Amino acid sequence: MKAEEQALAERCVTAMFERDRASQAAGMRIESVAPGYARVSMPLDPAMINGHETAHGGAVFTLADSAFAFACNSRNVPSVAHHCSITYVTPAREGELLVAEARETDLTGRFGIYDVTVAAQDGRVVALFRGHSAAVRGSVVEA
Amino acid sequence: MKAEEQALAERCVTAMFERDRASQAAGMRIESVAPGYARVSMPLDPAMINGHETAHGGAVFTLADSAFAFACNSRNVPSVAHHCSITYVTPAREGELLVAEARETDLTGRFGIYDVTVAAQDGRVVALFRGHSAAVRGSVVEA
Amino acid sequence: MKAEEQALAERCVTAMFERDRASQAAGMRIESVAPGYARVSMPLDPAMINGHETAHGGAVFTLADSAFAFACNSRNVPSVAHHCSITYVTPAREGELLVAEARETDLTGRFGIYDVTVAAQDGRVVALFRGHSAAVRGSVVEA
Amino acid sequence: MKAEEQALAERCVTAMFERDRASQAAGMRIESVAPGYARVSMPLDPAMINGHETAHGGAVFTLADSAFAFACNSRNVPSVAHHCSITYVTPAREGELLVAEARETDLTGRFGIYDVTVAAQDGRVVALFRGHSAAVRGSVVEA
Repeated sequence: MKAEEQALAERCVTAMFERDRASQAAGMRIESVAPGYARVSMPLDPAMINGHETAHGGAVFTLADSAFAFACNSRNVPSVAHHCSITYVTPAREGELLVAEARETDLTGRFGIYDVTVAAQDGRVVALFRGHSAAVRGSVVEA
Repeated sequence: MKAEEQALAERCVTAMFERDRASQAAGMRIESVAPGYARVSMPLDPAMINGHETAHGGAVFTLADSAFAFACNSRNVPSVAHHCSITYVTPAREGELLVAEARETDLTGRFGIYDVTVAAQDGRVVALFRGHSAAVRGSVVEA
Repeated sequence: MKAEEQALAERCVTAMFERDRASQAAGMRIESVAPGYARVSMPLDPAMINGHETAHGGAVFTLADSAFAFACNSRNVPSVAHHCSITYVTPAREGELLVAEARETDLTGRFGIYDVTVAAQDGRVVALFRGHSAAVRGSVVEA
Repeated sequence: MKAEEQALAERCVTAMFERDRASQAAGMRIESVAPGYARVSMPLDPAMINGHETAHGGAVFTLADSAFAFACNSRNVPSVAHHCSITYVTPAREGELLVAEARETDLTGRFGIYDVTVAAQDGRVVALFRGHSAAVRGSVVEA
C-alpha cells in the first residue's frame, strides 16, 4: 500500500513537471517526492536578481510555489493554489542553489495547507511559505 | 513640491528598473509611476505557463512583487519586502498581457503596506496581492 | 433596485447581529451597513487589555472579523470566513473606541475578499485586516 | 543551562499571564511552557458563539494569539505581534475545550515566526495560525 502511494506520487510529479514549462525554464530539479511532500532545487541565475543585488522575491516565491504544487498534486487529486503567503528571512545571492521543501500540514476535504521552507546550501533559511490548495475535478495521471 | 515628488518617484523607479535584471528578463514594462504608486505590465510568455496550462502562480506573483517594489521605493527610501500574500481569483493564459497596479495603503514609520491588483486586458481580476515593506538605510538615487 | 438591496443588507445584518452573542458581548455596535459593506464600533474595555498594557491582538481581530462577517453576509448569501490576516499598525489603549470599516474588494463566484481598516477616534490606523469568505448553502434571512 | 532556560520561560509566561487581563477573562489556562513554546487551553463559553452557532473566528484567533504571545516572550525578550494569519479548518461548538499549541518555526535577529495549531479535544484541527513577532526593548522579567 505504502509502496503504491509512493509510486503514484512519483508518477504524478513526473507528469506535472514534464508539462510545467515554467519550472523547467527556471532550472528547477525535483530532488525528492513522497505523498504530500516534495523537495525541489533551483540555482539563482543572473536573470533572477533584482535592483538590490539579491534574489528577486518572485524567484524565491516561484520555487516555493512549485514545491507546493508538486506536494499537493502528489496524491493524484489535481489541486490548484488559492492563497499563498511568504516571509523573507535572509536575502539570497546570485549563484546560490536554493532548496524548497514542502510538507502537508493539513488536508481536510478538498482543502490543504502546505508549509514550505526555502533554504540555501549553507543551511540558512531564506524564506518561509504557506500555501492553501483546493482540489478540482479529474486526476493528474491515469490510475 | 508635488512636481518634485513626482520627478523623484520617476527617477527612483527608472534607476531601480535599470538595475533589476529579473523584471527586465520577465518582459515587464513600467506603465505609470507616482509617489507610493506603480503600474507595471507583463506579457505571459510560454516560459510562464505551468502544468495546468495556466500562468504559473510564481509569474503572477513576480509581476505583483515588482509593482510593489517600485511603489515602496518611489519616495527615495530604499525598502525591502518582508512579508507578502497573494490570492488567485481567476486563471490567466499564455499570450495575455497582465497589468499590476500597486497602491500604498499605509506607511507608518519604517513599515508600509501596499495593495496590488493584477488584472488581464479584458478587465477581469487575476490576483490580489498585499505586500509589507520595511525601510532600510541609504537612498535609491542621489538626492 | 438599489433601495431594495440596501434594505436587504440592513435586514441581513440586523438578523445576524441578533444571533451573534460574541459581537454583542464585546460591546459592538453596527454604525452603518450597505451591500458588501459594514462599519462597526467597539469600546476597548479592561477585559481586552494584554500584558503590554495595550489592546490584545485578539480584541482588535474580533472587531475586524465581525465587520467582515457582516459585510460578506449582507447580500443574503450566507458566507463563512476561510482565511484571514491582520497587520498591527499602532497599538490601542484601554478606553479608546475602535471603528472597523469593511469593504468588498472582490467577489468572484462563491469566494469574496474583504478589506477592513480598524481606526481609533483620533483617526490613526490601528490595524489592517483582509478576510477571505466562502459562500455556503441557504440564506441569511427569508427573502 | 537547559534547566535555566526552562525556568526562565516559566517565569516569563507566568508574569505575562498575571498582567494579561484579556487571556484571563477568556478563561485561558497555561498547560505547558518551554523556550519558544506554549500550550494554552480555553473552553468555548456562550459569549464566544456567533450567528452561525459556531465559535466566533475572533475567539479562536484570540486563543491562538495568546499562545503565540507566550511562546515569543518566553526567552525574556519582549516581543510584539506584527502580522498574523489564520485559516479555519473545522468549526468549533459551544462547550468544547480548545487547545492551542505554539512552536517557534524561525527566529532570526529581532524577527520570529511562530506556528500555532488550535485543536478540539477529539483531536480534530480547528484552525492553523502563523504569527510574526518583532522584539522590542527591555525584558519581560528581571534577570
